[in-house]
Amino acid sequence: MAKAKREIYLDHIAAAPVRKEAVDTMLSVLKTSAGNPLSVHTRGQKAAEILEKARRQVAELIGCEPFEVVFTATGSEANNLALKGIARARKNKSSRIVISSIEHTSILKAARALEKEGFEVVALPVDRYGFVDPADLKEALKDGAAVVSVIHASTEIGTIEPIEELAAVCREAQVPMHTDAWGSAGVISIDIDTLGVSAMTIASQNFGGPPGAAALIVRKGTTLRSMIEGGVQERGLRAGQENIPAIAGMGTAAELAAGDMVSNASKLSAMANELLKRIPEEIEDCIVTGHPEKRLPNHASFCVKYIEGEGLLLFLDQYGIMAASGSACTSKSLKASHVLEAIGLDAATAQGSIVMTMGLESDAKDVDYIIESMRPIVERLREMSPLYRKKD
Amino acid sequence: MAKAKREIYLDHIAAAPVRKEAVDTMLSVLKTSAGNPLSVHTRGQKAAEILEKARRQVAELIGCEPFEVVFTATGSEANNLALKGIARARKNKSSRIVISSIEHTSILKAARALEKEGFEVVALPVDRYGFVDPADLKEALKDGAAVVSVIHASTEIGTIEPIEELAAVCREAQVPMHTDAWGSAGVISIDIDTLGVSAMTIASQNFGGPPGAAALIVRKGTTLRSMIEGGVQERGLRAGQENIPAIAGMGTAAELAAGDMVSNASKLSAMANELLKRIPEEIEDCIVTGHPEKRLPNHASFCVKYIEGEGLLLFLDQYGIMAASGSACTSKSLKASHVLEAIGLDAATAQGSIVMTMGLESDAKDVDYIIESMRPIVERLREMSPLYRKKD
Repeated sequence: MAKAKREIYLDHIAAAPVRKEAVDTMLSVLKTSAGNPLSVHTRGQKAAEILEKARRQVAELIGCEPFEVVFTATGSEANNLALKGIARARKNKSSRIVISSIEHTSILKAARALEKEGFEVVALPVDRYGFVDPADLKEALKDGAAVVSVIHASTEIGTIEPIEELAAVCREAQVPMHTDAWGSAGVISIDIDTLGVSAMTIASQNFGGPPGAAALIVRKGTTLRSMIEGGVQERGLRAGQENIPAIAGMGTAAELAAGDMVSNASKLSAMANELLKRIPEEIEDCIVTGHPEKRLPNHASFCVKYIEGEGLLLFLDQYGIMAASGSACTSKSLKASHVLEAIGLDAATAQGSIVMTMGLESDAKDVDYIIESMRPIVERLREMSPLYRKKD
Repeated sequence: MAKAKREIYLDHIAAAPVRKEAVDTMLSVLKTSAGNPLSVHTRGQKAAEILEKARRQVAELIGCEPFEVVFTATGSEANNLALKGIARARKNKSSRIVISSIEHTSILKAARALEKEGFEVVALPVDRYGFVDPADLKEALKDGAAVVSVIHASTEIGTIEPIEELAAVCREAQVPMHTDAWGSAGVISIDIDTLGVSAMTIASQNFGGPPGAAALIVRKGTTLRSMIEGGVQERGLRAGQENIPAIAGMGTAAELAAGDMVSNASKLSAMANELLKRIPEEIEDCIVTGHPEKRLPNHASFCVKYIEGEGLLLFLDQYGIMAASGSACTSKSLKASHVLEAIGLDAATAQGSIVMTMGLESDAKDVDYIIESMRPIVERLREMSPLYRKKD
């Protein structure tokens, strides 16, 4: 196999480069020694100002009020806080939790933990594109629920859910709805008033901010119990000192994203669309997963039949092409993806999952090289596969 | 009041400057765009290497195995994970939790949350210096317990607890013990084998690392339930992507601290001791809180009678002197400190709390200026106080 000459990074949804301006902001905070935002002295007040500025920048990006932004360290933490926090606060109203069957593992496992506390979990089915049907949600809510959570856009198959319609069903049933917009906030325009949800997870990394900064947006009037208890930070909803450098970097990235997310998305989707079109055409027995159009603009995902996605990734890496196979949070658990199972793929096909996610530095000119590298690897892997019988 | 000419920062326990080398490490990680440690490709593996290097550096600092380091975002998160995680995993063994009455608010409130889950919480008394008596612990454990948690060194009064003796009592009773070493790890030498605890909270900020990086040390054989559920990160004990830049910075700071913590401590304690000696001598009705010797080397704490600590802080700030009044995590809650109450101070005296914590850039030459600035402020505040009657 050839040694990597190029570096083509196609795993932005697992971890993405931090925008230069966000790094500069972080560095200036780290070097000027901001204090603790709860301290009454000058340096503490300066830290509080940095924190509140970032809160306004993040609020602006998605159209909420600054006080509705509850900073967390990760999207997984925000998801856990949302599901457990709202469910526990409303346990006296209902012990049912409704999620989709294609949620991120942090929602799935939080739901399983809540089952042990006596909640009943309903996982809504999805169609072959991954869409949740609002009618199914309506049916699931006929006796009420403590909380509903449906992912805004699947990080594995890219599909963007009809959250507006689902949220309308929830409002009618008077059940608070959370959406995990980890992969979409800052990538596509989101106006939280239009979406109509009560809570939303967002993370900094998908729009050029640093790791260590994420948030749960908690709309006014939504009650939830804290998960990490202690100090009075973040309206008492998340104790522990805020990570001021990372949050400041997230603020800068949010402001930049608010300005250029739409033009970036059109550039990204040009590359994604080329991959989505050409890979199934030029590589035999390769299918697109997720909806072909209603998907994240920076996302192309496939199942390559008769091979293992993990093997494909390792060989692609030798060509300098870095992609993913499902969600990074589950990639080392070696189980078949629950998302691909939910859209109706058989276990063997699901094994051939490959996910390519683009970022600001991605270049559509690389598509030729990606396909040229991928084709012989797929052939070689298939020759080794007991499942594959070459067509004559 | 004079405008600040100098900047004398005495609130290192609330937030401290990040050491230059740690900032450089963070910056190099941020600029080289490390991936997600769970990704199988080159960039992911590089991130995993950075993560594991930091894990070794942190393990080295306190003498544990690298796999025993579970990275978290904050000390409060680590404290919640320890207390809730161990208690919930051992609920079938005992529903009693034993803590001291001078724990950080993140332990206190986690304990209160566990009470709602059916646990009984025993808060051990302390003597006037803040020491927990091992005999009291032994008595509290006579019918067993799910978990014990005692702070290693109080961040409010500086006292270092006899953790070795307390841990021996726990081992005899076969109850896992956690200690919150947030304020002490990396400041004073800690060998976790010698301490003998099952779990320990440490944070990066007190030894020159960045915010956003902390850890719960979980000794081999200690079982606990995860609090943030989802991905397989951190042995499944803490889901969510690790904050690689901050953790790498923590690693660098840990390595530096392992080398110079002892010499730094002796420099810091020279300044602290001068404050502890001179402030009560030169300012009337001012008492040291905590033990005069068995305390953190960078910590000097007092109660200035007949005044409000908060007012003192604001006036000191005008002289460029930035100090604290109790824990930053509770400073805006305006309640009398539970720590000062536990050591037997009346509520009025406790209001006059002031905590000065030093760091690497602190200079003992500033002690004169600190006392000269503080004396007239205290006098002025007392003139305004209804509690104060001037001695003739």
